[in-house]
Amino acid sequence: MKDLDDIHALMTDIGARARSAAAQLATAPGEARAAALDAAADAIMAQADAIIAANGQDLAFARDKGLGAAMLDRLMLDPTRVQAIAAGLRNVAAQPDPLGAVIAEWTVPSGLHIQRVRTPIGVIGVIYESRPNVTADAGALCLKAGNAVILRGGSESFHSARAIHACLIEGLRAAGLPEDAIQLVPTRDRAAVSEMLAMTDHIDVIVPRGGKGLVGLVQREARVPVFAHLEGIVHVYLDKKADPAKALAVVLNAKTRRTGICGAAECLLVHRDIADTIGADAVSALIAAGIEMRVAPPLDRVAGTTAATDSDWGQEFLDAVMAARVVDDIDGAIAHIRRYGSGHTDCIVTEDKAAAEHFFARLDSAILMQNASTQFADGGEFGMGAEIGIATGKLHARGPVGAEQLTSFKYLVRGNGTTRP
Amino acid sequence: MKDLDDIHALMTDIGARARSAAAQLATAPGEARAAALDAAADAIMAQADAIIAANGQDLAFARDKGLGAAMLDRLMLDPTRVQAIAAGLRNVAAQPDPLGAVIAEWTVPSGLHIQRVRTPIGVIGVIYESRPNVTADAGALCLKAGNAVILRGGSESFHSARAIHACLIEGLRAAGLPEDAIQLVPTRDRAAVSEMLAMTDHIDVIVPRGGKGLVGLVQREARVPVFAHLEGIVHVYLDKKADPAKALAVVLNAKTRRTGICGAAECLLVHRDIADTIGADAVSALIAAGIEMRVAPPLDRVAGTTAATDSDWGQEFLDAVMAARVVDDIDGAIAHIRRYGSGHTDCIVTEDKAAAEHFFARLDSAILMQNASTQFADGGEFGMGAEIGIATGKLHARGPVGAEQLTSFKYLVRGNGTTRP
Repeated sequence: MKDLDDIHALMTDIGARARSAAAQLATAPGEARAAALDAAADAIMAQADAIIAANGQDLAFARDKGLGAAMLDRLMLDPTRVQAIAAGLRNVAAQPDPLGAVIAEWTVPSGLHIQRVRTPIGVIGVIYESRPNVTADAGALCLKAGNAVILRGGSESFHSARAIHACLIEGLRAAGLPEDAIQLVPTRDRAAVSEMLAMTDHIDVIVPRGGKGLVGLVQREARVPVFAHLEGIVHVYLDKKADPAKALAVVLNAKTRRTGICGAAECLLVHRDIADTIGADAVSALIAAGIEMRVAPPLDRVAGTTAATDSDWGQEFLDAVMAARVVDDIDGAIAHIRRYGSGHTDCIVTEDKAAAEHFFARLDSAILMQNASTQFADGGEFGMGAEIGIATGKLHARGPVGAEQLTSFKYLVRGNGTTRP
Repeated sequence: MKDLDDIHALMTDIGARARSAAAQLATAPGEARAAALDAAADAIMAQADAIIAANGQDLAFARDKGLGAAMLDRLMLDPTRVQAIAAGLRNVAAQPDPLGAVIAEWTVPSGLHIQRVRTPIGVIGVIYESRPNVTADAGALCLKAGNAVILRGGSESFHSARAIHACLIEGLRAAGLPEDAIQLVPTRDRAAVSEMLAMTDHIDVIVPRGGKGLVGLVQREARVPVFAHLEGIVHVYLDKKADPAKALAVVLNAKTRRTGICGAAECLLVHRDIADTIGADAVSALIAAGIEMRVAPPLDRVAGTTAATDSDWGQEFLDAVMAARVVDDIDGAIAHIRRYGSGHTDCIVTEDKAAAEHFFARLDSAILMQNASTQFADGGEFGMGAEIGIATGKLHARGPVGAEQLTSFKYLVRGNGTTRP
């Protein structure tokens, strides 16, 4: 399997099978796609012990490799987490079918009736790291939208992914859908990733899930289109008309609820007029909550702060660290975000409707928020059932990517012997 | 200008100016964008003589190069065509503003109100060949959707494009919009095209307009996403339940109205049951209309046909030539189209609603038609005002690409100090 020629043949075969499965899926009823996911959830529950045993192999391998506690925790499956995986599958199954919907229809002067209807994209490639649940989530969302999927999990979660994948296959079989609809790349060889990035004939879009190293590699090398975000350099701006209680609640939640997710706030911007009041209180509260606050003057008057350096602006800490500075006005905040942001999620805290509109109009992040924690940047919280990732690109999918964003469309045009003059 | 380093510097400068103009355009009111197009139309009419004189220079150059009559006709501008260019600009100006519209909005259980609003994409690159009107059409559609555009016309239409571009600039100036919103690459050096294809920082999407050579090059080489179709291998299938009069009208119009456009039919498929009746009549009528019919038995019984060879299936003739064959049933037609089609536009002629639904469901061309000429595959005919091209890709834009397809979206989320548990 370590021979490059073999990997090429292997991946070409997987790609061709995926294309063929996609053609069958495109006309499979929504009930069958949902039934496959429910049956897969049943299989997950029935196979829980086997999944946890497979996960144990991965954990032993990871400990041998000296992986850190955070990585080990990400990788670990216990009965509760296995149950959550099954619940996630049922949740996606229960979402409305995104396919077949008439997105728009109209009649033109020539008499033609035109419909724009939702169709699957075709074949999705998902390249991810250690979280075993991505196998189930990504497989489920792609199937829900009528796409075949090629999953390439991280080598750390190899056995866990195989065990979960086996349950997905059981679900497909139970629903009479092609097993090739959800394929897991059966090798840890990294050459398989390079193949996927170049398989323009067999893969329509690639979704990388993981750290900046993986996503950056995929974005740089892929010949196939990519839905992804490289970084979540999330800003919270406290406007001069911020409500003190909301400001405190939002910024604390945005930073501290979970520091390692892409929607976690990384930089606090404070309007000069409230620097010594709401701003100083927020910085103090963050420090009290265990956050290292790297600040520029005058916020350094707050006890317990450390001095920010230039490299702290635009930094994605993904940790209990936050940068903070004062801006002269809302346009100063906007200029800072334009310069240092990553177009993922940015938030304004204000009671001033016009200020919020200004912030919304002048910035072009995928998600802009007012008076809400940036930790809501998530497909589940957006009501999409689940997400395969969050995209910051401007084409096709943007923000949380759910089943609906994994679809395309076609035009159906009906005439009556209609000819063009 | 022939130095590669200079072209790189030139294009980087153009790209940076486009980004800056795009940021300004994103907040310019729709009235200003429309006013710029109306003012540009005025300038086109006022400068008609100068445009025609510039076009004369291009025609002389083209004749020296020995270009064929069809190319010369494509290149040529006369007062009527100049007037049509101005009318096209006014038509785009009069379309509803695609920006700012709330595409969807909903409230989630956490209390957040979520809006998905339409925004510009950013910077569009357009690479085209000899038609001078593309300068105006592409410039207008990009501006209408709030995007900056970098136009790279063919060397044959160099002077015509410059003269038309000058009028677009006049329009931008009159409306107080940045002149860099519509830039024309000021060199015939082909290195500029290679630069554009790699300018991922400065161009968000590239639209190639021209022959298969140009489009193929762009699709192969571009690191920037592309909206395009390589070929229009358009099929018309006459079902056993076809109405004879509609069949004749549709197939004649689909093939003969204009043979050189991408929506022109290239292959006729006939259900076996009507091969000797409707099928034979259609083939005869096409021959009478001057079309060379390359047919497989039993259609060779029709007088005046020539024998089809394997290479005629899936051939984009773009000329007065058409392939034709009999299929056993609708699934035979679908299988032929899946194998040889290009996913552009395909048509079924039938009175049988179920057959049409089957054809629509089993095929995934960008445009599927029933009882209508495939020559309607056009943004104008779809009611989009104009089109920048037709796309067969499955991501973002598909079918005719008008101003609306040149937009992206962002999420605006409003809370009330809302935090995530």
